[in-house]
Amino acid sequence: MIIVFKPEATDKHIERVVERLKEIGMTPHLSRGVARTILGAIGDERLLEEHPLDAFEGIERIIPILKPYKLASREFKNDDTVVDVDGVKVGGETFTVMAGPCAVESEEQVLRIAHFLKERGVRIMRGGAFKPRTSPYAFQGLGLEGLKLLSKVRSETGLKIVTEVLDAQNADLVAQHVDILQIGARNMQNFELLKKCGRLRRPVLLKRGMSSTIQELFLAAEYILMEGNHDVILCERGIKTFETFTRNTLDISAVPIAKLESHLPIIVDPSHAAGFRAIIPALARTAVAAGADGIIVEVHYDPEKALCDGQQALRESDFDRLMDEVRRVAAVMGRTVQ
Amino acid sequence: MIIVFKPEATDKHIERVVERLKEIGMTPHLSRGVARTILGAIGDERLLEEHPLDAFEGIERIIPILKPYKLASREFKNDDTVVDVDGVKVGGETFTVMAGPCAVESEEQVLRIAHFLKERGVRIMRGGAFKPRTSPYAFQGLGLEGLKLLSKVRSETGLKIVTEVLDAQNADLVAQHVDILQIGARNMQNFELLKKCGRLRRPVLLKRGMSSTIQELFLAAEYILMEGNHDVILCERGIKTFETFTRNTLDISAVPIAKLESHLPIIVDPSHAAGFRAIIPALARTAVAAGADGIIVEVHYDPEKALCDGQQALRESDFDRLMDEVRRVAAVMGRTVQ
Amino acid sequence: MIIVFKPEATDKHIERVVERLKEIGMTPHLSRGVARTILGAIGDERLLEEHPLDAFEGIERIIPILKPYKLASREFKNDDTVVDVDGVKVGGETFTVMAGPCAVESEEQVLRIAHFLKERGVRIMRGGAFKPRTSPYAFQGLGLEGLKLLSKVRSETGLKIVTEVLDAQNADLVAQHVDILQIGARNMQNFELLKKCGRLRRPVLLKRGMSSTIQELFLAAEYILMEGNHDVILCERGIKTFETFTRNTLDISAVPIAKLESHLPIIVDPSHAAGFRAIIPALARTAVAAGADGIIVEVHYDPEKALCDGQQALRESDFDRLMDEVRRVAAVMGRTVQ
Amino acid sequence: MIIVFKPEATDKHIERVVERLKEIGMTPHLSRGVARTILGAIGDERLLEEHPLDAFEGIERIIPILKPYKLASREFKNDDTVVDVDGVKVGGETFTVMAGPCAVESEEQVLRIAHFLKERGVRIMRGGAFKPRTSPYAFQGLGLEGLKLLSKVRSETGLKIVTEVLDAQNADLVAQHVDILQIGARNMQNFELLKKCGRLRRPVLLKRGMSSTIQELFLAAEYILMEGNHDVILCERGIKTFETFTRNTLDISAVPIAKLESHLPIIVDPSHAAGFRAIIPALARTAVAAGADGIIVEVHYDPEKALCDGQQALRESDFDRLMDEVRRVAAVMGRTVQ
Repeated sequence: MIIVFKPEATDKHIERVVERLKEIGMTPHLSRGVARTILGAIGDERLLEEHPLDAFEGIERIIPILKPYKLASREFKNDDTVVDVDGVKVGGETFTVMAGPCAVESEEQVLRIAHFLKERGVRIMRGGAFKPRTSPYAFQGLGLEGLKLLSKVRSETGLKIVTEVLDAQNADLVAQHVDILQIGARNMQNFELLKKCGRLRRPVLLKRGMSSTIQELFLAAEYILMEGNHDVILCERGIKTFETFTRNTLDISAVPIAKLESHLPIIVDPSHAAGFRAIIPALARTAVAAGADGIIVEVHYDPEKALCDGQQALRESDFDRLMDEVRRVAAVMGRTVQ
Repeated sequence: MIIVFKPEATDKHIERVVERLKEIGMTPHLSRGVARTILGAIGDERLLEEHPLDAFEGIERIIPILKPYKLASREFKNDDTVVDVDGVKVGGETFTVMAGPCAVESEEQVLRIAHFLKERGVRIMRGGAFKPRTSPYAFQGLGLEGLKLLSKVRSETGLKIVTEVLDAQNADLVAQHVDILQIGARNMQNFELLKKCGRLRRPVLLKRGMSSTIQELFLAAEYILMEGNHDVILCERGIKTFETFTRNTLDISAVPIAKLESHLPIIVDPSHAAGFRAIIPALARTAVAAGADGIIVEVHYDPEKALCDGQQALRESDFDRLMDEVRRVAAVMGRTVQ
Repeated sequence: MIIVFKPEATDKHIERVVERLKEIGMTPHLSRGVARTILGAIGDERLLEEHPLDAFEGIERIIPILKPYKLASREFKNDDTVVDVDGVKVGGETFTVMAGPCAVESEEQVLRIAHFLKERGVRIMRGGAFKPRTSPYAFQGLGLEGLKLLSKVRSETGLKIVTEVLDAQNADLVAQHVDILQIGARNMQNFELLKKCGRLRRPVLLKRGMSSTIQELFLAAEYILMEGNHDVILCERGIKTFETFTRNTLDISAVPIAKLESHLPIIVDPSHAAGFRAIIPALARTAVAAGADGIIVEVHYDPEKALCDGQQALRESDFDRLMDEVRRVAAVMGRTVQ
Repeated sequence: MIIVFKPEATDKHIERVVERLKEIGMTPHLSRGVARTILGAIGDERLLEEHPLDAFEGIERIIPILKPYKLASREFKNDDTVVDVDGVKVGGETFTVMAGPCAVESEEQVLRIAHFLKERGVRIMRGGAFKPRTSPYAFQGLGLEGLKLLSKVRSETGLKIVTEVLDAQNADLVAQHVDILQIGARNMQNFELLKKCGRLRRPVLLKRGMSSTIQELFLAAEYILMEGNHDVILCERGIKTFETFTRNTLDISAVPIAKLESHLPIIVDPSHAAGFRAIIPALARTAVAAGADGIIVEVHYDPEKALCDGQQALRESDFDRLMDEVRRVAAVMGRTVQ
């Protein structure tokens, strides 16, 4: 950590900071320049999170040198984490396609989509039972009934299930019915939910918040890892910008950055990034080319009747085309699609 | 609602949409231009939230005409809502200053700050017991112990208390100890929490999400209002942009827009918008001048020892200066500061 | 165009708008709903650009239906434009790699890089003679001397040259020395420069502004096309967001959107998007996978000595690796790299 | 300047950086920690702009300590700059209202508005002769004819004139006709134009780019100051965000920050920030309260007939109300409105 003092900082101001650093176990190194006095603090910077210096008089700026996350970093663990979803691997040499409807609507619907996907070699199905919706007037999901339908799909087809958990309160319930707990973009900094999922023994799919930085995503993962759950899958799903053609702006750079900085697997959600069907296959191809470990996409046999996000649901024929294209790019990248 | 069809849309595409509109009780008006066919749909547009048209083939764009929120709108209720916080009014002709430490740290700390504020005429004190922190290594608040200390302040000083509730799970607990439930920026779209607070009988201070639009803020308020709780105070606290001098960018325009579009009171949080002490009084003055109903600011007698956000805490002398300046601008605006 | 009136709009307000529409040659269609009166205006919406209605009393909102650009749109010209750069094609079935140093620094430097690139099969070289720099203290380019060096490279190697033109004033000069005129991100809305380049007979490489929407990019292209120059190559180079790992956020979705909406070729600049070398090959692969017509990248044999942007310059070995990867993904996409 | 090395940096990497620093006249201070080696470089950091270190191997991050701007900074000049516009002062104890139409449309129009404004005590009139328009189909201004009309207003009324200059090419021409050269938001980083205006002897009104940081605004001012023109007036006019109610998001914090960091006067443009009339008076009040040195607003006696931006033009009665409100807040701030 580097502390830069204001030109007008007094010796007393500097002394006070030096003392505080010593108190918390860091080693200060003072360097007086013509224009500024600078103090380097050597030691575990996370100590400063609990004893912040921000408000000390005379300080102009505090510059962290070390990364604020540890367990999520590649410095902590060099080997890629491969998450085992009850026998299905995410990460490593496979490229995982998770697919399914936006929302669980009926038994007929989920089973039909499940069988379709299974035939295409998909092993993990998505489907929302609890839907976070901007408007209170929009369809909010079937809730518990939806969970039960997902459970039925699981036992009938052997597909693994990922579904969103909205709240620490019903995380246990969700964990009883599905294989992967999804933490949605709006909840990436719902810290109670992160901690709760960290205490459950289920892989977690952690979506990046729509206005979160990649570093904040790593810190959200850190909350889960710290509780002892190491099975975290990151997900880039687009961030908010001023662009209006797309629902969000897919930050494809997040993929190679996650690979540099972290050992956790990362997948891409082209459906929510795009917000409309036509460009989803192209974005899926970029996910493979960027080095992602998979994608999660929305599929519906009759998008016109979908109760949510129909405009971004792939039809069955779209999905077949997407899989074909994904497979061809994956082959070049040395990955097997499943 | 206006539905614009693609140039290549067929009669069958158009017919299907017309029929669906009739099914859900809306009246379609077709208008065929040279370049595009357009369909106007007359009726309650919120019906479409449950039966979306987005995925119908042939549609290029769907343009809502009516606002997606109702209860929060000025069209629904023309008179300004004045929230009664156990005898202290927020809204109307008063300009309310809520102040206090970022976090409850100790009995000595909260009582000292409470007495200081009370002497200055402040009637509502803020203070966090549960702190949402980006890093898991940062101070997370005293929790239940913090709530008890706030309760003690309340009974000793008569100050009303506002504190953040992080999770639907412990909303009941928080409601037992304080007067106003604060929903933080990161939780503005935590819909379970919104609904829960809508069912409690406590005023709610609803902060705008750091990347939420004003319309999304109104829709979040709508979740609370729909559950029967009409005592919602909006709060503008800065949005995320690429600017780096400030922690967030205070969107001061949100104040006059809220006054045009909604009947709910709106206050401003200059502390979190700025992120550093020096410009907070200036931002507080702009809040008054913009027509806000109050501000919420962080105050600490010894910011260097504050366990969180010390750099944005006003010292006692800063607060006195701020109050003086706020009072002078408020006088011009015809408002009484309390 | 759809005009939505306020609930309180009077008959007179509506009448005035109807008359104005008739005056400028559009056909109005009135539709009175319970909540709102709506007016559809049929005809060429670009007429409204010259006779705007925005300020008419009683109007709540004006919604354009047609696209504001014409010549750049795929509706206007369905076939992909292939730009002929003095015999080298950009667009169609080739994937064009433009490469070279950030800035022209010396004869030795540009010639060495030129020969290196030529051996690798590159046919278009980039290199800045005039450098737009945020700080006036930074290296501003060699200017005319730089142009002459580029000219020399051109005649010695046969490579085509792309370089930035900063100002309408010296566009003629630049056009005498190079093959493609680059309009930089900061100048995307320098309308005098756009018009000037539209009047020159040189292909134009038009970079998207760092905070421009894709639609604004199309409109900037429209300025050039309207002057009679049809050889416009679009370039996505990243947009400004709050993310800090990267210099800008590569909006890879712009590629498939440009392919849907426009006939113009589009290339990607992964160097400026990333801002650091390590992730540039990954982003180049995504460009190919997204369907782009090429990339433009920075290369330097000794980045440590580069006078600008050395941290994002690929070393020779990096470039070889990138070309190899790009070729493999291009093969899958049915493209030949040149 | 602080240089942080990667954990894997070798002694040779570090040595090379140390040598380069010495070469360019800076003094290196090495500090080896457990986790990272850090190098402090003492001396004029602007030297590094010409000899960048970014690409040296082994470097993880370079952190500037000093500000990249000098002449624009308050450290360089402590006293507030007051710009003298041919006898009318901007800055200091006056609060300057610049007002006028978006575009010059006719002699009758500019003279009528000029006389109206003069009667209200306004001393500087705005009006565009060259209009930068996103769409090539929109009204582009009267050009030279417009300049002549402004010149006529100046001689007939004695009002000082501010108008936009789009291009270095015609800056001389514009300078012959008006008192203040406005550099628009889209041109804030048109460096040729900045330099040209720096060489002219006319005050410059420099608008912040819609996606520029405040620091980039200071650096743009630095370009002008370096050429010897010290009469620069900064202007905050809103930045691009995802918010849609307003055309741009007024970053009101830019005002107190400019006052802290720079000696240059700063005014606010509430018209372009808002994009619609109703909230402009409220934003104008916030400008005064924030400590700005003035505002620039659009006024038209018949906005319905305005050829551009009519929806954000104040009617005469709106302007009177605005002036009244501005005067009352200015009195509290100790400012005289002119």
